[in-house]
Amino acid sequence: MNTPAHPLHLHEDRLFAAEPTQRAIARRLYAEVARLPIISPHGHTDPAWFADNKPFANATELLLVPDHYVFRMLYSQGVPLDALGIPRRDGSRAVVDPREAWRMFARHFRLFRGTPSSLWLNHVFHEVFGLRVRLEEATADLYYDTITAALATPAFLPRALFERFGIEVLATTESPLDPLDHHAAIRASGWPGRVITAYRPDPVIDPEHEQFPDALRRFGELTGEDVYGWDGYLAAHRQRRAFFARMGATSTDHGHPSAATADLSPAEARRLFDTVAHGRASAADAELFRAQMLTEMAAMSLDDGLVMQLHPGCFRNHNAGLFARYGRDKGADLPLRTDYVNALKPLLDRYGNEPRFQLILFTLDESSYSRELAPLAGHYPCLYLGPAWWFHDAPEGMWRFREQTLASGGFYNTVGFNDDTRAFLSIPARHDVARRVDCAFLARLVAEHRLDEDEAAEVAIDLAYKLPKRAYKL
Amino acid sequence: MNTPAHPLHLHEDRLFAAEPTQRAIARRLYAEVARLPIISPHGHTDPAWFADNKPFANATELLLVPDHYVFRMLYSQGVPLDALGIPRRDGSRAVVDPREAWRMFARHFRLFRGTPSSLWLNHVFHEVFGLRVRLEEATADLYYDTITAALATPAFLPRALFERFGIEVLATTESPLDPLDHHAAIRASGWPGRVITAYRPDPVIDPEHEQFPDALRRFGELTGEDVYGWDGYLAAHRQRRAFFARMGATSTDHGHPSAATADLSPAEARRLFDTVAHGRASAADAELFRAQMLTEMAAMSLDDGLVMQLHPGCFRNHNAGLFARYGRDKGADLPLRTDYVNALKPLLDRYGNEPRFQLILFTLDESSYSRELAPLAGHYPCLYLGPAWWFHDAPEGMWRFREQTLASGGFYNTVGFNDDTRAFLSIPARHDVARRVDCAFLARLVAEHRLDEDEAAEVAIDLAYKLPKRAYKL
Amino acid sequence: MNTPAHPLHLHEDRLFAAEPTQRAIARRLYAEVARLPIISPHGHTDPAWFADNKPFANATELLLVPDHYVFRMLYSQGVPLDALGIPRRDGSRAVVDPREAWRMFARHFRLFRGTPSSLWLNHVFHEVFGLRVRLEEATADLYYDTITAALATPAFLPRALFERFGIEVLATTESPLDPLDHHAAIRASGWPGRVITAYRPDPVIDPEHEQFPDALRRFGELTGEDVYGWDGYLAAHRQRRAFFARMGATSTDHGHPSAATADLSPAEARRLFDTVAHGRASAADAELFRAQMLTEMAAMSLDDGLVMQLHPGCFRNHNAGLFARYGRDKGADLPLRTDYVNALKPLLDRYGNEPRFQLILFTLDESSYSRELAPLAGHYPCLYLGPAWWFHDAPEGMWRFREQTLASGGFYNTVGFNDDTRAFLSIPARHDVARRVDCAFLARLVAEHRLDEDEAAEVAIDLAYKLPKRAYKL
Repeated sequence: MNTPAHPLHLHEDRLFAAEPTQRAIARRLYAEVARLPIISPHGHTDPAWFADNKPFANATELLLVPDHYVFRMLYSQGVPLDALGIPRRDGSRAVVDPREAWRMFARHFRLFRGTPSSLWLNHVFHEVFGLRVRLEEATADLYYDTITAALATPAFLPRALFERFGIEVLATTESPLDPLDHHAAIRASGWPGRVITAYRPDPVIDPEHEQFPDALRRFGELTGEDVYGWDGYLAAHRQRRAFFARMGATSTDHGHPSAATADLSPAEARRLFDTVAHGRASAADAELFRAQMLTEMAAMSLDDGLVMQLHPGCFRNHNAGLFARYGRDKGADLPLRTDYVNALKPLLDRYGNEPRFQLILFTLDESSYSRELAPLAGHYPCLYLGPAWWFHDAPEGMWRFREQTLASGGFYNTVGFNDDTRAFLSIPARHDVARRVDCAFLARLVAEHRLDEDEAAEVAIDLAYKLPKRAYKL
Repeated sequence: MNTPAHPLHLHEDRLFAAEPTQRAIARRLYAEVARLPIISPHGHTDPAWFADNKPFANATELLLVPDHYVFRMLYSQGVPLDALGIPRRDGSRAVVDPREAWRMFARHFRLFRGTPSSLWLNHVFHEVFGLRVRLEEATADLYYDTITAALATPAFLPRALFERFGIEVLATTESPLDPLDHHAAIRASGWPGRVITAYRPDPVIDPEHEQFPDALRRFGELTGEDVYGWDGYLAAHRQRRAFFARMGATSTDHGHPSAATADLSPAEARRLFDTVAHGRASAADAELFRAQMLTEMAAMSLDDGLVMQLHPGCFRNHNAGLFARYGRDKGADLPLRTDYVNALKPLLDRYGNEPRFQLILFTLDESSYSRELAPLAGHYPCLYLGPAWWFHDAPEGMWRFREQTLASGGFYNTVGFNDDTRAFLSIPARHDVARRVDCAFLARLVAEHRLDEDEAAEVAIDLAYKLPKRAYKL
Repeated sequence: MNTPAHPLHLHEDRLFAAEPTQRAIARRLYAEVARLPIISPHGHTDPAWFADNKPFANATELLLVPDHYVFRMLYSQGVPLDALGIPRRDGSRAVVDPREAWRMFARHFRLFRGTPSSLWLNHVFHEVFGLRVRLEEATADLYYDTITAALATPAFLPRALFERFGIEVLATTESPLDPLDHHAAIRASGWPGRVITAYRPDPVIDPEHEQFPDALRRFGELTGEDVYGWDGYLAAHRQRRAFFARMGATSTDHGHPSAATADLSPAEARRLFDTVAHGRASAADAELFRAQMLTEMAAMSLDDGLVMQLHPGCFRNHNAGLFARYGRDKGADLPLRTDYVNALKPLLDRYGNEPRFQLILFTLDESSYSRELAPLAGHYPCLYLGPAWWFHDAPEGMWRFREQTLASGGFYNTVGFNDDTRAFLSIPARHDVARRVDCAFLARLVAEHRLDEDEAAEVAIDLAYKLPKRAYKL
């Protein structure tokens, strides 16, 4: 094979405006935040990695198979999931040589041009693995061999990478049914890395979750509470929240189809739960129950101090055929139009003015930024805005988030960055993109004389480090 | 106290692109409009200021207490309204030293970084009061003393400021129940400042307005009409509109939860009004009545020539607890998704092609700019687009307004700027921001060779001065 | 008359950023695509022009009367359609000297400042007719005479212009009832220009179309099928699709009020069609029937390979008075909020994973770009995104399309440009604008170090030439 023709650069000024005045300001601001520790208050890495500290298997298993941002794009252009060895719902997998899957990925890498996946992956390739040529068909094997060989070395064990990445704290997300054994093992190990959990009770709250009946039964077994009665069910939540908090959790997280909240009377709530617990909930009952539970969770947050996160507006498992064969989280989740002003009113009427309560709102519907979310966060003491999420976690999406929330919400009703990822190696890349975009955004404000540079530098540090620590009580 | 560390600048090129070609064009365009008189065709200043011409009390009473843009941001970050001395619904106020309230404001001024409030306030501080250091904790007293001392001097009386600001005409907004005594006093005083009113009949049109029953009764007393009958009710409107027009009004204004219009038969309208007038209106009746009244107001505009303004899509008094304690206009109004294409059809089917009718549309839902408002205004002869409103009255919001309405609506279906403010001192600042943003926007079109500079200069003058005069018949 | 004062330029760098680094990159990228042949896979030109190859009549008949982008703007500012000689619904026309209509247009040409119409028209004036002064009142006659004289010469016959414009393929759009005689004449003529048709069955699919009863009857007469029975109706579609394909069609096109799809059982579909065919369809029946027919059309596309296009979300003929007098396509069509994620699910559940099926989605609701369309296209193998459409086919709209679809959809789930026009002379102008905007967009990615320039050049060529050929099977 000839020497590959295309060098891979990571330009030191990437994501900064070409205009020299703005670029120079952005560079100076970025110098203030580039080396700050990483605060990762919300994400989906596997705590077993840090508990067991075993090597990752190979390039394909690490970078391709778990990353639905990546394989959804290949699938959209006709690459079958079986050709990549994506696991099926029944636990089986097509027999695919991981090197062949990697070659397939390399051949299609051009599909990611301009997307955040290419930013993150090229950062990983260049910074973590020292690669200096582009990924394409001709370099597929070089990549596969380089990455796979590196992963077998001690420097690429999960804990070593955690330290190399400068992570100060990393939150994972677990179901109430999770025994948190991995988190216990991390704590017992003497390793000083701070890996904490977050309480994500969707499987025991959403009557339409395919695991709900089974999850509810196990919720009762685990807690010893009568979870088929309203009081016992709430007590079980309190018990598990307390356990999660003891294992480091500072937050809960709620992934609902909508942002609907409710504030039923105790008698109404009791009746509704009876319907739900006995499997008789209609779609409207299910929606109302999820809505009521957000308000119940807010009440518990006032008691135990856990910060509440709401990630609404996703149509999960939209592709019926794909779901039947491959199950959840296969890149077939899709955003929905999402309302907040009406939806949140019941909860806000109850707890909106509580200074001790913190509710961080996310959206997949960017039209809500300037219309609903920024005005809400710019008024209610309890409300904060989470960063551009999922489909919008790209330079353009981050820029729109800032442009559309600044006027009504300012910078200080936002909470800095979440990487929200299961792609562990991309965490530094994602935080780097966020810091660069915020610095570029601030540089424009400075260059257009709306903010002095010393103020912008303070804001940059707040966004990169101080605000996430404050918002998540870290 | 040491010399404060941070100078306050107002850069002459603020809000212009950093790129030198664009900036140079923007400067030249701005030079054409910077000193044009201010046309303020829609706002909420108090006519008593100009009738009585008494001095403003102090910095806090002038700049903080009446400005919900400002105190809503402080409230969102945990500052209680009582700490600022915001009046309560029952007329009482916490006993707060205005200087202490000002210090609280100063300590939190960083919250406004990047927001339009900081642009406006810094303009007022620098240009009106000659301050040359930033507002922060260390300079709070300097600010308070400087501003309060200045306000006691003749140069800071309302009429003197009106003249210094170069205001050619200023419209206030009054209820039909207002006797317009202040406007009469201004006219009788011999002072040449042109302060006019606008007819805002929401309290006697909206059956869900908390003052409606009382307002309707007073509407009858004031006009001598039988306002509990449909004919008398309409006659009362005609009478008051004529009175407002005699007192200088050239426009009406309508703040509705939605843009719904209706075109009922006279018999249906009569029956609906009977329900409304006797306090038996359901929510649906109330919505239909407001919808019908927009069409009735359009009919009256055809007769009396008053330009009609519609400001829809605001959920008023969203925070129940805050409303109970502090009442209206406390920063808890929130935008709603708003439809126009279906909502306006009944009115447009009736009057949409009338060349003598002018209806200026506003929105709090920016997603309607390119989808509905610009295509509507780019077709119907009666429709014009009001500028970026309220939550969107920031440089980013103004830029989005232009970028999203230009293709279908052009510049000439828009009406220039409204400051829409009760913060009298910020009027020059707000018009200056609008003029700068329009010049920056035009400069980009020129720099990208889409418009010649002589054309852009003509457009800049039209937007700053000629279009508002034409649209509001001033 | 004096020499007109204002020269008309077409700057070689128009639509490129003023910033020199970006502009230089954009220039180099544009040099790669400027002279590529034009692929026009979707539009509304009249095939009779190319069949008959007769001269266009005069400036007014060619450039003003057929272009609702143009006369809607004049109408919005009070110019009556009769003053322009726009034909009425009954076939009559006001008696207007076309020169006078042209003068009216010239006097109002300033209304188009900054709009895409001015870009396209100035391109036509400068490049096609060699005009070097701006259109305004003083130059109206010069324009009218120059254009009208040119049109009488052989170089301005339709086929000569087609060749001069470098059009490789041009698709028109016809109803199933069209005998395609013009297309047959073109093929029989020996002229090598490739003018193909596309199957647009709305008049025989939409029960609410004013021509539906008559169109259905003629559909039966033309095909010899019993189109009042479900089987015969479907067979008639298959027959006409096959005929269209033989006449060069590679695509179908569907203009529906919403994107709703359905997947009824055969028995339900049969019952629904019976209601529809006999004129008893309610509005809900009509919507369901259109929805079901999209799925039926998808099934047929799987059989015959025609690419499917969906153009939803337009409220046709919104202005009741104008429609009564002037009929369809008079600039009174307006965008509606449009949902895709729920609406398309029935069709996608059936055919979403079919690699041989291609469905190109368009929208008039830009809020769906990042929320729904890009995530859908970035997952489903059958889905592609059509370019910014109609009201959004402007530099700003194209830029928003790219900025809001890139993260989730990439470049390769888009299909390049459609001019979608009946304004034949503007076709090169429209493609030129699209190519320039894509190059400017790519130049920014290169300048901000997100893409190497060789990759950007490849993408530019793909967007301008290769992707439309692939997507439309041309």
